[in-house]
Amino acid sequence: MTESDEPGALEFPLDAYRREGLMAPSGAEPVAHDGTGRVQLSFTVEDKEAPSVQRAVRVPPGVSVFDSASWNGIAIDSTCGGHGTCHKCKVRVSPVTPVTRHDARTFSAAELEAGWRLACLVRATRDHDVLVPPLVTRPKAATVGVGRQVILRPAVQKRYVELTEPTLEDQRSDLVRLLDAIDDLEPVPDLHMLRRLPKVLREADFKVTAVVVDEALVDVEPGDTTEKRYAIAFDLGTTTVVATLLDLVTGTPVAVASMLNKQQPFGGDVISRISATMLDPSALGRLQQAAHDTLSTLTEQVCREGGVDPLHVYEVALAGNATMTALLLGIDPEPLGVAPFVQTTATPAPVLASEVGLALHPGARMALFPALGAYVGGDIVAGMLATGMDRDKRVRLFIDVGTNCEIVLSDGERILSTAAPAGPAFEGGAIRCGMRAADGAIEVVKLAPDAPVGVELGVIGDVTPMGVCGSGLVDAVAELVKVGLLDASGRYVTDEVAKEIAPGLADRLTYIGQERVFVLHRERPDSDPAESVVLSQRDVRELQFAKAAISTGWTLLMEELGLEHRDIQQVLLAGSFGSYLSAASAVRIGLVPTLPVLRIVAAGNVAGEGAKMALLSVRERAGALALLEEVTYVELSDRSDFNDRFVDLLAFPT
Amino acid sequence: MTESDEPGALEFPLDAYRREGLMAPSGAEPVAHDGTGRVQLSFTVEDKEAPSVQRAVRVPPGVSVFDSASWNGIAIDSTCGGHGTCHKCKVRVSPVTPVTRHDARTFSAAELEAGWRLACLVRATRDHDVLVPPLVTRPKAATVGVGRQVILRPAVQKRYVELTEPTLEDQRSDLVRLLDAIDDLEPVPDLHMLRRLPKVLREADFKVTAVVVDEALVDVEPGDTTEKRYAIAFDLGTTTVVATLLDLVTGTPVAVASMLNKQQPFGGDVISRISATMLDPSALGRLQQAAHDTLSTLTEQVCREGGVDPLHVYEVALAGNATMTALLLGIDPEPLGVAPFVQTTATPAPVLASEVGLALHPGARMALFPALGAYVGGDIVAGMLATGMDRDKRVRLFIDVGTNCEIVLSDGERILSTAAPAGPAFEGGAIRCGMRAADGAIEVVKLAPDAPVGVELGVIGDVTPMGVCGSGLVDAVAELVKVGLLDASGRYVTDEVAKEIAPGLADRLTYIGQERVFVLHRERPDSDPAESVVLSQRDVRELQFAKAAISTGWTLLMEELGLEHRDIQQVLLAGSFGSYLSAASAVRIGLVPTLPVLRIVAAGNVAGEGAKMALLSVRERAGALALLEEVTYVELSDRSDFNDRFVDLLAFPT
Repeated sequence: MTESDEPGALEFPLDAYRREGLMAPSGAEPVAHDGTGRVQLSFTVEDKEAPSVQRAVRVPPGVSVFDSASWNGIAIDSTCGGHGTCHKCKVRVSPVTPVTRHDARTFSAAELEAGWRLACLVRATRDHDVLVPPLVTRPKAATVGVGRQVILRPAVQKRYVELTEPTLEDQRSDLVRLLDAIDDLEPVPDLHMLRRLPKVLREADFKVTAVVVDEALVDVEPGDTTEKRYAIAFDLGTTTVVATLLDLVTGTPVAVASMLNKQQPFGGDVISRISATMLDPSALGRLQQAAHDTLSTLTEQVCREGGVDPLHVYEVALAGNATMTALLLGIDPEPLGVAPFVQTTATPAPVLASEVGLALHPGARMALFPALGAYVGGDIVAGMLATGMDRDKRVRLFIDVGTNCEIVLSDGERILSTAAPAGPAFEGGAIRCGMRAADGAIEVVKLAPDAPVGVELGVIGDVTPMGVCGSGLVDAVAELVKVGLLDASGRYVTDEVAKEIAPGLADRLTYIGQERVFVLHRERPDSDPAESVVLSQRDVRELQFAKAAISTGWTLLMEELGLEHRDIQQVLLAGSFGSYLSAASAVRIGLVPTLPVLRIVAAGNVAGEGAKMALLSVRERAGALALLEEVTYVELSDRSDFNDRFVDLLAFPT
Repeated sequence: MTESDEPGALEFPLDAYRREGLMAPSGAEPVAHDGTGRVQLSFTVEDKEAPSVQRAVRVPPGVSVFDSASWNGIAIDSTCGGHGTCHKCKVRVSPVTPVTRHDARTFSAAELEAGWRLACLVRATRDHDVLVPPLVTRPKAATVGVGRQVILRPAVQKRYVELTEPTLEDQRSDLVRLLDAIDDLEPVPDLHMLRRLPKVLREADFKVTAVVVDEALVDVEPGDTTEKRYAIAFDLGTTTVVATLLDLVTGTPVAVASMLNKQQPFGGDVISRISATMLDPSALGRLQQAAHDTLSTLTEQVCREGGVDPLHVYEVALAGNATMTALLLGIDPEPLGVAPFVQTTATPAPVLASEVGLALHPGARMALFPALGAYVGGDIVAGMLATGMDRDKRVRLFIDVGTNCEIVLSDGERILSTAAPAGPAFEGGAIRCGMRAADGAIEVVKLAPDAPVGVELGVIGDVTPMGVCGSGLVDAVAELVKVGLLDASGRYVTDEVAKEIAPGLADRLTYIGQERVFVLHRERPDSDPAESVVLSQRDVRELQFAKAAISTGWTLLMEELGLEHRDIQQVLLAGSFGSYLSAASAVRIGLVPTLPVLRIVAAGNVAGEGAKMALLSVRERAGALALLEEVTYVELSDRSDFNDRFVDLLAFPT
């Protein structure tokens, strides 16, 4: 049993989330629903200028009506972000729910009896009809993630206020004077803000803009600065790091930049970086610094390109795997790297952006995605958020292919996740002519066994091929299986068989020393194979090991949920590798279930999209935290059936 | 109207205090009590080894039964400090109160019906009978403040735990593993703590001590360190700063040190230090640094003397006036110094001890006392806490005599406070032969008008008198009034009258130039008065102005509450000056109401005592915050009747 399905093992932020009233405390109220793990809310959304709209949504029991609406793109008035303080999110529910203290202050007795309640305080514990009155203010929304429409409600808020000046009759402190003017929020002031407060108030004639991040009052700025409100979303990958500067007023990206993670010199994958910290006591500090430098470089770049003053960036969100997150924070990653693979924490402590070396607003906060396990980290939780894994009722399989491959399977009710150790093959590691997806890499391979030139290659940068990257490797193997030069067990056929079944390709199947190779690219037909781009028998084995590990992962999860291949309605291939992979080839080699290719979708950089969503909406951020409860982490390394399945799945599907 | 009596003007920590469940939210429940502003709780305290004890206490409505008991020295079992998590503070109340979620989890239906509740969750909203069962563990207590018995419940808590090691079947994160073992607390981890956690757990074989300060998990230490738990209480005076190192396990002081505030070069009083910041932009930073240096020096001294590792000091509490607190935090004090005398905040933001330059445990917190107004600061709130101003039903007057004199008056129900600008006379300033209370200062004066040597002096350090300090000044004037050498208006009598009424002293009443002086000490009878220690006519006037300002303050507060001099049951003279002042002389010159001297008590360094109480008990600390609501601040500077009263009170009582 892992912590995510163990009620007593919740970590603090989830609890904070509960304290904030975003979820019902477990056991607080009896839950009456149909047993499927979801309750149905039937919304009637009124509009002053159009007919009412009916929408039924199914949500986990205990979620507030406000959240349920938000998650499904149904806007309800609110200015406080659902903390029960603005008293604006009025809805009528049927059957009626308990009256809270805030309801009693907001509605008349007759209204209460008619079912009027504040949507942020109503828990969906059974099926309900919900009437949403016409909006007073139409909220902005942005499309992010995989087709997700997100209503803008960032943690970063600004309020321009014109305060009355103090007199002997009104000696309220500067802070109280300001807080009284923004009384739908109840932020706690930073010391930095208090130091500026008296001077800024008086120099600006008490006309100022309060800057609130989540529950913190981080600054007071002279005059009206409400239009200057930015945040940066980071996808901190082991290989590549991407930063997106977001305008929180409009919800749109202002600038995007990416670069290789400066931790590269310590090794290409998480295990080599963890090993570095175990061998050298100074490595943790240097890895931490390298991460800080990477994020700082990107920060400078996006701010410069976007023409944005870094002091107007008040929040960053970061999605990274458990090792990247630990190294960024300076937490020893060793327990992540050795059995039993334990995290220091799944939900990191609140961190200031300055604590990871970022020169932004001094009060800028950092929101880190929580992790489901040592090998299903915050990047995958962000990806699940971006793809709506918990809110889509279809049967969906999410695969992030990499050295460590993360797999999530949802049948629309239960969600399982696991990690499979795929090894470096997909990144070109341990492959004779393997390379990263850079200029000169073969990324597409087509074989025509009967044509005069039987090999058609797609090469990145349209230059002379120098090697083969992950998607080219998958393509090559898939095509070789298709034409029959590789048999189902993954062995190259004999020269005789080759000449018979693929005369136009047979001369490419040759030897380097003792090893059987297939020549993908050669300068001339008589070039030395050792100086050409080839796919060796050992390379094929490496790929088989990798794809078997992955397919064992999703096979075991499918068995857990009682699903067959054909039940999967959508396969989401995440990450940059997933975007370039040929769906047909992935099916051919058995990397994904045997399905029509249209069901296989490249989802792109979903971790980065999830980070953007977290910045644009505190609701979505809370949803990411809720995933820790909704998703069951399945540990494969101690499964007795893992090796059996693995051996079965080494072969290619026939 | 000031913020302290304005329900809408509460600052965040009070709200936090409410969130923590220490007080009922205003308006949450109808309050039924007898209209005196207090409700009565009649406790029956059971004991296994002794007969039950009956105790009735009166408390402000809305306070929890647990707090009410604590404040009155009645112990109730608890380990969580009243956060509703340990479920140990069981009491039986009558009439019964609403059942909370925590009650429902703790008691059977029959017990609930019988009135059993968790004391920390029951609000005293009407009169109740409360049965307290025999204690399971007898809490430690310490006597601090003015005869206050405080039950030890420090914010700093340590828990020694022996954890089970992780396995593939139990992959809980390190943090969850630790938090599960201390599940009556729900602390949020510091990043520093998370960085240490994996290594410390494994190096110490999962046998560790968790260190919690308030709601923060600040460290995990190898092995059992529960006996090492220290804190430092600071009284940050404008002149003198005192540090007391406390052992939180026993509640006893380990070492005490004091020194002059290193801000002295910027001026002796708060106004001159505020002026310094207005004249020189760099002064605020230098004053801040001087405060940090002062606290650091004292910290090193008490840790060295106490033989305590500074890393075992996890919290400090600090009581200082509003200006000292602002300067310490680097907040511009200018608005405190000019009308309308506004604070930046009455309740400073949470601060780490390291932010004020203290080299203690890196997660050590600083608890700062809140202020009632620009001139009734945290030091006075601490003093009120130490003297129990809000819990004593007697009519009491609290006076902290100094350049700025703070006055608090309670009739047992209402509490009023104000500040009076007394000027520097009591600290020896603006007095011809004035000096601080140091070696050579005359601190006691007795006059015998008929004796051969008519003057008897008490001198600090038993050395040759060099000047006169505040208490000597008050004594001298009081004695001169008593023997008739000063008339009721404060004018020295003529030589003729002097010879007639005080033949043994008449030759001491003489002139320096044009000014009339009385010689307190001379080398020889024929010494030049200009080289002797004298009290000039102008000195007497300075003292009159000072004492008139103070007596105007308490006179106006007494009028506000409809009290006469004889109604005052106790006068508490606070601060080091108050400790040395002769009660009889204070009455004689009208510095305090005309009362029997036994009713006038030197309370000592009550600010420092309050700071100690805050460290020993989170309940007491919450009580200090509650004072902001209970005490009404009266601003004198815009009172039209102030000057009339002041002129009346310049004369000495007859």
